[in-house]
Amino acid sequence: MKTNTQQWTETEQKIAQEALKKAYTRETEALVAEINQKASQITQISDIWALNDYLNSRRYSIDGKYDSRESASVFLLAQLVKEKWLTLDELTDLTPSTRAKVAALAKSQFF
Amino acid sequence: MKTNTQQWTETEQKIAQEALKKAYTRETEALVAEINQKASQITQISDIWALNDYLNSRRYSIDGKYDSRESASVFLLAQLVKEKWLTLDELTDLTPSTRAKVAALAKSQFF
Repeated sequence: MKTNTQQWTETEQKIAQEALKKAYTRETEALVAEINQKASQITQISDIWALNDYLNSRRYSIDGKYDSRESASVFLLAQLVKEKWLTLDELTDLTPSTRAKVAALAKSQFF
Repeated sequence: MKTNTQQWTETEQKIAQEALKKAYTRETEALVAEINQKASQITQISDIWALNDYLNSRRYSIDGKYDSRESASVFLLAQLVKEKWLTLDELTDLTPSTRAKVAALAKSQFF
């Protein structure tokens, strides 16, 4: 299975990178909206520390997921499809074989 | 100089603890108001990470300052007076000598 950019064609790499960029924009925009909403409900210091914990956790998760040093992989694309930051329809330009792997992984209950 | 509870009378300790409690409430209430205001201006992910950094820093500072394992000290009281979370008028029940030390430290430009 193609799991990193070394094994991807240049075209596939480019498609995957664009898809990741799109997913990143969606996920971070959703986080901005969520934090606006959460922040409006803050009334005491424990709410502030809870928000702080939540932001630390989301930052760790987002930074790790979209780390630019990480190669695009079918696993990451599948994760983003599963999390609904991408749709399979947005990956139609990948080779049918790669797309099928992403689709299969995204459906897997063990992923 | 009296710098920890071992050297304070029980009455002075109690006065200092009540003053710290008051300062903590003021400082954390001010932080809640500040975060409400900052959060309402969040429009992009970089604002979120800036808020996250700010909260980490404030939490570190507040947790350290009011750490219950730490003994009350003239240094902490002076710091709180300098930061305007306490006034010297609220420390009139301390012995004149302790209060004078707090006042002197709070005025010091090197503190």
